[in-house]
Amino acid sequence: MADSFFNSRWVDAPAQATEVSTGELPLGFRAAGVAAGIKPSGNKDIALIVSDVPETTSAARFSRSGAQSAPVLVTRQRTELHAIRAIIVNSGNANAATGNRGLDDAAKMQGGAAIVAGVSEANVAIASTGVIGVPLPIDKVIKGIAEAGRQLRSDGGADFAEAIRTTDAFAKNVSLEVALSTGTARLSVQAKGAGMISPNFATLLVFAQTDAKLDADEADLLLSVCTKRSFDRISVDGQLSTSDTIILQASGASGVSIEPETEDEKIFGEALDAALRQIALMVARDGEGARRTGRVLVRGGEQQGVERVAHAVADSPLVKTALYGGDPNWGRIIQAVGAALPGTAPLSVDITIEGIPVCVAGAVVNHDTEALKQAVQGSEIEYEITLPGEGAETERYFSDLGHEYITINADYTT
Amino acid sequence: MADSFFNSRWVDAPAQATEVSTGELPLGFRAAGVAAGIKPSGNKDIALIVSDVPETTSAARFSRSGAQSAPVLVTRQRTELHAIRAIIVNSGNANAATGNRGLDDAAKMQGGAAIVAGVSEANVAIASTGVIGVPLPIDKVIKGIAEAGRQLRSDGGADFAEAIRTTDAFAKNVSLEVALSTGTARLSVQAKGAGMISPNFATLLVFAQTDAKLDADEADLLLSVCTKRSFDRISVDGQLSTSDTIILQASGASGVSIEPETEDEKIFGEALDAALRQIALMVARDGEGARRTGRVLVRGGEQQGVERVAHAVADSPLVKTALYGGDPNWGRIIQAVGAALPGTAPLSVDITIEGIPVCVAGAVVNHDTEALKQAVQGSEIEYEITLPGEGAETERYFSDLGHEYITINADYTT
Repeated sequence: MADSFFNSRWVDAPAQATEVSTGELPLGFRAAGVAAGIKPSGNKDIALIVSDVPETTSAARFSRSGAQSAPVLVTRQRTELHAIRAIIVNSGNANAATGNRGLDDAAKMQGGAAIVAGVSEANVAIASTGVIGVPLPIDKVIKGIAEAGRQLRSDGGADFAEAIRTTDAFAKNVSLEVALSTGTARLSVQAKGAGMISPNFATLLVFAQTDAKLDADEADLLLSVCTKRSFDRISVDGQLSTSDTIILQASGASGVSIEPETEDEKIFGEALDAALRQIALMVARDGEGARRTGRVLVRGGEQQGVERVAHAVADSPLVKTALYGGDPNWGRIIQAVGAALPGTAPLSVDITIEGIPVCVAGAVVNHDTEALKQAVQGSEIEYEITLPGEGAETERYFSDLGHEYITINADYTT
Repeated sequence: MADSFFNSRWVDAPAQATEVSTGELPLGFRAAGVAAGIKPSGNKDIALIVSDVPETTSAARFSRSGAQSAPVLVTRQRTELHAIRAIIVNSGNANAATGNRGLDDAAKMQGGAAIVAGVSEANVAIASTGVIGVPLPIDKVIKGIAEAGRQLRSDGGADFAEAIRTTDAFAKNVSLEVALSTGTARLSVQAKGAGMISPNFATLLVFAQTDAKLDADEADLLLSVCTKRSFDRISVDGQLSTSDTIILQASGASGVSIEPETEDEKIFGEALDAALRQIALMVARDGEGARRTGRVLVRGGEQQGVERVAHAVADSPLVKTALYGGDPNWGRIIQAVGAALPGTAPLSVDITIEGIPVCVAGAVVNHDTEALKQAVQGSEIEYEITLPGEGAETERYFSDLGHEYITINADYTT
């Protein structure tokens, strides 16, 4: 399984799904990625994906930032989010904090993509990622859209994935065949997003396609559940991008239909869930020089309490630097727990690191410190925290905080 | 003024106060600092301060962490917080997450200090700072308390300040003479706390003494107001210690009385306010290799909104790394603002850095990028953020995030 896309111990590979050549899209979809000169590097920076099926359904999620980028604002306001046929993406410029000109430019991208894709503007979503506060070079973008339209291909998924990347250290895309009761459905996902990387490039973009037939409501339900279990559970540096966008499209071209509350829904949902969770982990793990990924599992009596503790631990720069350094210092964990639950002292909390209990009922317990030190040297470290009471539980994945974050973020200049 | 304690442009030196030799305590107080062998370095690690005046009043504030240390728990539960005569402090061990043994040890410190100070146990406060989750070497501590009792001196403030330090790069203590209408009152403050330093040593301890006569209620009011304007407004790394303790004691030995709502109250309050604000800035500025301190000033229509934005900017690792790098990247500021106010897009926000407007009504405005780049190279950088509406305002001070933080925190091992 070493070569499997599902290479985290925290994600089970879906039982009835097979990995196929990445780049191969589900039936009905074509995609392309081209270089339009937005990135100074000359790398691919315009990505287009189109469903040729008029009945295509979709669901979408966006950053809730108060400073949403122009493409997010325009897509939310003008696109039929349950019927997205085409998605036009540029990298190298976020088109954020760009005022009315930014809104006009986003509308031009939507219009251009509608023409080359042969669909209505209302069926086109827009996404941009890159530097904030700089107007788009819209002429280059429009030429790039025209070129992307000429290069659309059914195996264009890899080019598409390449063109949405900014500083991701590795590609994040997968194509699966999922065996359902009435036939095989394909599912592909392309994503970009890297923790601990220059913030102008930290945006999360996730595009998933399937040729299964899904009601728009069903697509929305599946995307909602899977997003909550994946991207809503990662802490990179506690920051929220202006541009985060997640879109699921279903062409129905396979003829395989997925109905609510069936075994097929469960199987397909597990495949989507596993793919998005694996990609979320990849986002937490990405970043030049990132060494380790953490998972914090919190149990207790109140959902609000376990969520606050999970956030506090996962976002703590002290916990993150300890993770980076392979430091078993659990004092940082209890400090984060205490800070998340002010006014509750003395708090009875249990802490286990990689299965080794270090703190019981709020106080240190004897443990093999050498074994603990060895246990935190791996690439995935698990922290279990138990608060008083029972019934609530959550988890959160997080990246470490190391010298590369400082180097990239302090020495990067707009 | 280069040699003045008040060396930040954000703190005005109090007009009617004069700096005097640090170490000289207000009348009625004696202090000492000794080495008891708790710190492996052999540096001073037991500090004791005593007021010889039975009528001494006091006020105290503590960390609200759910994982409060044993000395915080014992002090809160067993000490008459309005009548603290003696304070016993050890550095090198936080006595936190140490269970019942920790509570017993804190009680022993309280008892020992009561004996050597000649006061009731109920008039003794306890504070500890250092490693978490390791039992105190209580025999050494008790011997150190006895020795400190023998060394109590009226000019022992500097020794006391030295003994409460852990990794602070510079001392944080000041002695002032404040000219009031009926005479001169002295005010001295000793503090420890360093941003961006190993979390086991990040605790904030602040001890202030005056020989003015203050009602306990008046002492509480003054400490409350000044704490809100100083230590409640700094973001070091967004972490809350298990052990933070702030205590103000008033011996009344000068014979100068400060009554509520008088000019003298205003003058004394300004001196205390300036001293605590300067120390808070020193805490944000401290840390080996820390380069710059930031101040974010947020104005707008709702107090909750401006507070959230100030916290988000001051705690953002992206903003902090930009501050460290002298990077004028204001995209990080608007990202933090947007994240603090989800669901408000499109948000009309103005951003000014060092007086240079970079963003108006949510969109970039032309500005001299070279001048901006030069402006962020100084040691204190100011960010002004204006949200819609008027009437609410807050500020927050924060440290940068640089390589030294990673080195110290990732490579430190319990």
